[in-house]
Amino acid sequence: MDAMALPVNDRCPVARSLTILGQKWTLLVLREAFFGRTRFAEFSRIGIPSDVLTARLGSLVEAGILERSPYREGGGRVRDEYLLTAAGRDVLPVVAALSQWGREHLPAAEASTMRALRDADDEPVRLAFVDSRGEVVAGRDVVLRRLVG
Amino acid sequence: MDAMALPVNDRCPVARSLTILGQKWTLLVLREAFFGRTRFAEFSRIGIPSDVLTARLGSLVEAGILERSPYREGGGRVRDEYLLTAAGRDVLPVVAALSQWGREHLPAAEASTMRALRDADDEPVRLAFVDSRGEVVAGRDVVLRRLVG
Repeated sequence: MDAMALPVNDRCPVARSLTILGQKWTLLVLREAFFGRTRFAEFSRIGIPSDVLTARLGSLVEAGILERSPYREGGGRVRDEYLLTAAGRDVLPVVAALSQWGREHLPAAEASTMRALRDADDEPVRLAFVDSRGEVVAGRDVVLRRLVG
Repeated sequence: MDAMALPVNDRCPVARSLTILGQKWTLLVLREAFFGRTRFAEFSRIGIPSDVLTARLGSLVEAGILERSPYREGGGRVRDEYLLTAAGRDVLPVVAALSQWGREHLPAAEASTMRALRDADDEPVRLAFVDSRGEVVAGRDVVLRRLVG
């Protein structure tokens, strides 16, 4: 494990998430999965070395984020493709939060290449904090509180 | 750079964010900052080696996420503490998204140690996608669309 090989802190959900999602390349592989990519060759195009991609896909399957599904194209041999599970689709806010922060605070000369949209009507959506009634709470009014337990 | 040393993909805001936030330990250092920690010795307690912490704090200052502020305690020498900037506070959704995912999909025997709350009344808040009118959009109805540009 090359990235985020953290001392075990089982009580912190951020640390737990990072043991999987914090591995190098993993969130970019998942970004591709959210774009609808499912195949090894498609994921490879982001520049990840093949052996690392193999390891990452294996970890993501083991973690229940992706699941293997066999396919055969033309007369070729049967291969696996990798589909997001429900737990995998729930990673979308992590990717969207990174995207929002990067767009806002690391502006690039070239335009952004992705947008989170409501599938039904392509309306742009953004991540926000909401209270129990679904009312938006401004980020500056939110604190992360450590619970003493 | 030990983590997320990615091929340059300047057009992807997720990749841009990860060049900073994807470095090993960085998001846990920022978690501590959100808890109100500001000092080197406080950040050290998460188990990060001192040389790595020095490097990470330097990168975070350079990236405009933390800023140095001198303080002197008792008769000691002047040291710097590290305060979140506005750009740094905007990382909160990334940390909150990781926390939500970990709580939901990597349940631990022990209770969670943190919660995002509205500062004014300690009401728990959660991250959600919202449309332009501030209406919550369910995660399963959101897609990440690659823009061809």
